[in-house]
Amino acid sequence: MLKISQRGRRIPASPIRKLHPLAVAARERGVSVINLNIGQPDLPTPHEFFDAASKFPTRTVAYSPSQGIQPYIDGLVHYYQQVGLTVQPHEITGTIGGSEAITMALLCCANPGQRVLCFEPFYTNYYSLAMTAGVHMDVLPTTIDDGFRPPKEEEIRAAITPRTRAIIICNPSNPTGTVLTKDELDMIARVALEKKIFIISDEVYREFCYEGAALTYWNYPGMDDQIILADSLSKRYSACGVRLGCVVTKNKGLQQAFLRIGQSRLSAGTFDMHACVPLFYLGKDYYAGVTNEYRKRRDALTDGLQKIPGVKCHKPEGAFYMLTELPVEDADKFCSWLLTDFNHEGATVMLAPANGFYLTPGKGQREVRIAYVVEEPRLRQAVTILEKALQVYPGKL
Amino acid sequence: MLKISQRGRRIPASPIRKLHPLAVAARERGVSVINLNIGQPDLPTPHEFFDAASKFPTRTVAYSPSQGIQPYIDGLVHYYQQVGLTVQPHEITGTIGGSEAITMALLCCANPGQRVLCFEPFYTNYYSLAMTAGVHMDVLPTTIDDGFRPPKEEEIRAAITPRTRAIIICNPSNPTGTVLTKDELDMIARVALEKKIFIISDEVYREFCYEGAALTYWNYPGMDDQIILADSLSKRYSACGVRLGCVVTKNKGLQQAFLRIGQSRLSAGTFDMHACVPLFYLGKDYYAGVTNEYRKRRDALTDGLQKIPGVKCHKPEGAFYMLTELPVEDADKFCSWLLTDFNHEGATVMLAPANGFYLTPGKGQREVRIAYVVEEPRLRQAVTILEKALQVYPGKL
Repeated sequence: MLKISQRGRRIPASPIRKLHPLAVAARERGVSVINLNIGQPDLPTPHEFFDAASKFPTRTVAYSPSQGIQPYIDGLVHYYQQVGLTVQPHEITGTIGGSEAITMALLCCANPGQRVLCFEPFYTNYYSLAMTAGVHMDVLPTTIDDGFRPPKEEEIRAAITPRTRAIIICNPSNPTGTVLTKDELDMIARVALEKKIFIISDEVYREFCYEGAALTYWNYPGMDDQIILADSLSKRYSACGVRLGCVVTKNKGLQQAFLRIGQSRLSAGTFDMHACVPLFYLGKDYYAGVTNEYRKRRDALTDGLQKIPGVKCHKPEGAFYMLTELPVEDADKFCSWLLTDFNHEGATVMLAPANGFYLTPGKGQREVRIAYVVEEPRLRQAVTILEKALQVYPGKL
Repeated sequence: MLKISQRGRRIPASPIRKLHPLAVAARERGVSVINLNIGQPDLPTPHEFFDAASKFPTRTVAYSPSQGIQPYIDGLVHYYQQVGLTVQPHEITGTIGGSEAITMALLCCANPGQRVLCFEPFYTNYYSLAMTAGVHMDVLPTTIDDGFRPPKEEEIRAAITPRTRAIIICNPSNPTGTVLTKDELDMIARVALEKKIFIISDEVYREFCYEGAALTYWNYPGMDDQIILADSLSKRYSACGVRLGCVVTKNKGLQQAFLRIGQSRLSAGTFDMHACVPLFYLGKDYYAGVTNEYRKRRDALTDGLQKIPGVKCHKPEGAFYMLTELPVEDADKFCSWLLTDFNHEGATVMLAPANGFYLTPGKGQREVRIAYVVEEPRLRQAVTILEKALQVYPGKL
């Protein structure tokens, strides 16, 4: 019988994007919508990108080598060097965003039916990417009351089955903003070593770290074959739409597998890769400027939210998200209501209901993910809107 | 035990790209290499692309809607209208090249372990894309002696198992250049209807058709739910490096599934989509110019090859490939030898050994795929090189 595949039917809609039609309708009614639902930085893409784009060197936009054009790989090596990571060119496979980096890692760690482990709440697309790869995802809970610290070593060990092939770590974390300590890194590494599973380390928010530098799993002692670094240019350079990133490993078998998977889709965007090369040579001032801007926003958002009665939030140490508990029965409904039934002085906010960042049914039901990707005054306005909304929302606890 | 997944180990290297290191080495020795291995058109990407790229409208290259920016979708609708296909905007999901269109189709037709059917020789990446999707591929042979016409209806029917979910048709065909007749289209549709399986119709070479227009499965009567059109801008606009295409269907469930899979990787390239919009509004002259250029090349290549003793070729009706049988024991070795041990007046040719376009062991062993993607004089030079090479090649039959 003609039937769409199970995975085709089951892959969930993005909780970050599913309210989009309601936001469009709100705007059509003349309501100004502040987008805090998606990790889409508002900062400009550095002008170096546009300068390079205007000087594309050939008259044909041709396929690139599947691992990426050499200046792109070399630029990444330079960037990593600048942030203290020694990476060799052959260890890098250029990818179509961080998404493809995760996909390649999943495909090469696990066969269909095998499993990966994540901490909950997790970056929601891990789940849909795992599902397209035919890989099952297991989760271990972390909680807002505990500042979203990782689970205990014993819990992690117990959650790893004989079919578990990898653990995915997002550090700094989307959606919680948690940054792992050295002890936490070591603890997870210890379990991965003992259980002989891969660590897929998603470090795309490396620079977005507000209390000292984020640690990395790259070059972690004794784990050369086990570490897969997933990275992306999207957040770092406010360039989400260029869809470029990389997957990095010292494991030679994986390097070859990544290249062969890369060949199956031919190449990443040649024009974009070319235009992004100068970004890798931006000075430390650039990154410091970005970090400072987001730190200010984080502080403003935390200060504001903490003053709203019934709102529980954990001040994030990194990334640009805050997972916040609201005094509402159902955050999903509240987020819709904000777009359909509410405005304060002609404006409202769009948030991501957090249940989509959990796999365990019922978890995160009162939580939202707030991305602080707008300027401070607008962020303060968003906090005011949220405060006013909670005063009148019928489903309030 | 720490082990790369089976699929990670088994995904084959691209037969189109695997000789790349030998070509690099040949160039380093000062040998000029004519690339006929890869379907990378040499024609310039229309200037309209670069013009639009220089006028990107926002200062941030942001994520796009997962189905693509509206002007991109609208542009595709216009393009399809111009070639006689009535397509509605909601039927289109923008993809990262034709590769992702095939991947999305595979993911939504079949679960891991289910099967798809192809005619052999097939576009080699179908196999690796199916493998990443965990889908098995079955093949039915077509032969050079028969002009690569599709198998008989009975054979196709017999090859469809209860686990077969789709048949992939490439029309005009990469790598054979075959263009299906109305009778052949009808025959395959009849079987697909009877067996209730999807037809994934890869029509990226639509315009590259030298004996009348190519037919399409779009709007095929009675098959609204069963047809999935995979398309790409790469060949049509000499823009392989922009990595853009689309997957089109009237099946509403599939439309939603494609969108959700699209959400899992967020968006295609925003900058490229923007720059490609004017391409959809190019006039008929543009397409006619491209078709005429490739027709001339096809004729030159066929004429030249037919004069070489022992070479067997079928004049292709479409696309820009010719699958050619050479009087050699092992085309794979011959293709390597051309790069490592031969040159004629300082030049040699890079071809794709055809065994990678077959799944049946031993098939295509004496065949190569020649992409006629260089100008006529250079193509004639390539034919001369091939002729000279065959005169001295030690592994000649």
